[in-house]
Amino acid sequence: MLKIRQTTSEQLSLLIELARWISISALVGIMGGSASALLLISLNYATDLREKHVWLILFLAPAGWLVGEMYKRLGTSVEAGNNLILEEIHSPTATIPVRMTPLILIGTFMTHLFGGSAGREGTAIQTGASLADQLARPFRLSPRDRRILLMAGISAGFASVFGTPLAGAIFGLEVLAIGTLSYEAIAPCFMAAFVGDLVTRAWKVHHTVYTVTDVPTMSIRGVAYAMIAGAIFGLAGMCFARLTHAVSHLAKKYIVNPPLRPVAGGLLVTIAVFGLGTSHTLKYIGLGIPTIVAAFHSRLPAYDFAAKSIFTAITLGAGFKGGEVTPLFFIGSTLGNALSRLIPLPSSLMAGMGFVAVFAGAANTPIASTLMAVELFGGEAGAYAGIACVISYLFSGHAGIYSSQRVGQSKH
Amino acid sequence: MLKIRQTTSEQLSLLIELARWISISALVGIMGGSASALLLISLNYATDLREKHVWLILFLAPAGWLVGEMYKRLGTSVEAGNNLILEEIHSPTATIPVRMTPLILIGTFMTHLFGGSAGREGTAIQTGASLADQLARPFRLSPRDRRILLMAGISAGFASVFGTPLAGAIFGLEVLAIGTLSYEAIAPCFMAAFVGDLVTRAWKVHHTVYTVTDVPTMSIRGVAYAMIAGAIFGLAGMCFARLTHAVSHLAKKYIVNPPLRPVAGGLLVTIAVFGLGTSHTLKYIGLGIPTIVAAFHSRLPAYDFAAKSIFTAITLGAGFKGGEVTPLFFIGSTLGNALSRLIPLPSSLMAGMGFVAVFAGAANTPIASTLMAVELFGGEAGAYAGIACVISYLFSGHAGIYSSQRVGQSKH
Repeated sequence: MLKIRQTTSEQLSLLIELARWISISALVGIMGGSASALLLISLNYATDLREKHVWLILFLAPAGWLVGEMYKRLGTSVEAGNNLILEEIHSPTATIPVRMTPLILIGTFMTHLFGGSAGREGTAIQTGASLADQLARPFRLSPRDRRILLMAGISAGFASVFGTPLAGAIFGLEVLAIGTLSYEAIAPCFMAAFVGDLVTRAWKVHHTVYTVTDVPTMSIRGVAYAMIAGAIFGLAGMCFARLTHAVSHLAKKYIVNPPLRPVAGGLLVTIAVFGLGTSHTLKYIGLGIPTIVAAFHSRLPAYDFAAKSIFTAITLGAGFKGGEVTPLFFIGSTLGNALSRLIPLPSSLMAGMGFVAVFAGAANTPIASTLMAVELFGGEAGAYAGIACVISYLFSGHAGIYSSQRVGQSKH
Repeated sequence: MLKIRQTTSEQLSLLIELARWISISALVGIMGGSASALLLISLNYATDLREKHVWLILFLAPAGWLVGEMYKRLGTSVEAGNNLILEEIHSPTATIPVRMTPLILIGTFMTHLFGGSAGREGTAIQTGASLADQLARPFRLSPRDRRILLMAGISAGFASVFGTPLAGAIFGLEVLAIGTLSYEAIAPCFMAAFVGDLVTRAWKVHHTVYTVTDVPTMSIRGVAYAMIAGAIFGLAGMCFARLTHAVSHLAKKYIVNPPLRPVAGGLLVTIAVFGLGTSHTLKYIGLGIPTIVAAFHSRLPAYDFAAKSIFTAITLGAGFKGGEVTPLFFIGSTLGNALSRLIPLPSSLMAGMGFVAVFAGAANTPIASTLMAVELFGGEAGAYAGIACVISYLFSGHAGIYSSQRVGQSKH
């Protein structure tokens, strides 16, 4: 009897703790999902405007100065962005300033309006986590609980910005460390991810649909091809991460005044865009969604992935704002498209595999990436993508796009 | 330059290591997949024969004695089954005797032929891992590499017996410990899982198809219903695990001679089957696949899940052989079917959620279970199932069906 009573009281206290976390993570989801909706709407607006007025790209350098000045005057405490959030999860010290949210939203908007090459997941993670962190004090959370709160914020942001709740839930657990995954925040991350995704959709934001049109029945050959492709995707992810770090390192070394770094980066991008001819280069700036969609159904130039890597590394390495993941989707899907000339798998499948696998390698998140493939492309394509993600993860080395990610377990 | 050279040599040595592991895990997959094929074919044969000749169930007790004597004389070193494999992974000592494979295959065949209520994943894991372990010596694997080998063997067995490679790959990583997951064996587990599944299919073995016919668009209500259902599924998983442990404990306490324990269990099952009337009870013995399929499209008695829990706990607790997972699918899908009278979600969706979520709770493997849902029922049902699996995992306590599972991170 005692055992049963103990058990019942264990389940009861669990129920109470869960009810508390449900409220907290629902709030995290509502805030993160709303911020993602605002972000997506503002980026649609910025992209439309820029596509109508290509001359806006001439002002990328001055826009970079504005973003740089804004962060120099108001944002030094939040400039580390995603890495600040990861550091706070690893060793909690102080609440993340709420100003992270408006600063990153404005910075990302400016970056995209004036033609930087960047993504959005970094922004969504920062708004999700910094808004979530504001709940720590009113709910009197312990440092351990604050860690869970921040992970739920990451999940809410990631899930809502891409419309992939399962991938978002696991991403918040998986991104902290390379090679290990701990379940302590699993329920809050799931809750925040699903609520965040629903809230973004409730704001009438629609996500792009990518369609893998042709998936051959799995075979030993299919496994082998997916592994070869995965290794190449992993190297591409590693190259992108290193290139971005190298640009950032050079900019910091040679340009002392921070706001001048994005000015230099902006100038380079503007010169490249107009110097090489807008008919060739416009696809490499901004999010690049039309090219990602095209990678699933048309034959694209084989160098697209390299051009996008360079444009994005310059933009983000120089200090513009946004994320790395949508460019990684671009790099991966176009590289997959190109590789389908050599690897005998359908090009739309290869695009889908590259879409998630370059990201898996660069972010060191193979399970979240596999779930994303399943959510976006279905289970059959997800099987190929899962193999590619795991091999990409192995081949991408230990220095991914998030420098504050720890090494929980060496890859080899 | 040095850095680039270092990197290149790092990737090269990775390539060599990977090539070695690809050969090893392909062999693991071939052996595990073939053993699963043999198991599935033999169980089909046993089930057909038993359904044609119901009187076979009268001989369950003597069959239990045979199984018990067989293990007493030949199998004391491998009697711990799944737990022996988990122990060897946690602290490697000696190669698992190859006799584990024929003994468990024969034991499972006898259990099913004479009407015990049991599953098959335990058998597939044991054949997969014990066959894999035979490669440790020829390939001169270190103790660390032998752990990876055993995990790949688990993945091969699980993936091939259910036809779910992604779930199998993650199951081999996830089952070791509660609350943490380490990636060191991720590539061998994926490789062994995919090859194992392909090999089983190459042996012309077909897997049952379960169809979730109706999935409403996700909503806040849907999330809430999935959480409530998940909590109940978790409690059902916990009750099943405790009941099985309790039967086993009682049998060991009151029956000194091991072969007499399955005799007692067999007698109980036979008396129950014929005493309560075969028209009611035959569905609870064996694998119970027709009832699982029916749970996805028909209304079933609300007590089915409880009856199956009792029949299986007696069968397995008394020392018959097989696995727990197919009975857990039965318990989950029929419980989901029953709960759809109270929870306003479609009954086929509730059956699918229960199918994976009771298993997630009892085995403490929420991510593998979510992937299984996606592979079997598709991404949309998988979202509901994922929520249910995570909540079930939280509510099932720390004593699952695998006693040798360690607690990596407490659930709450």
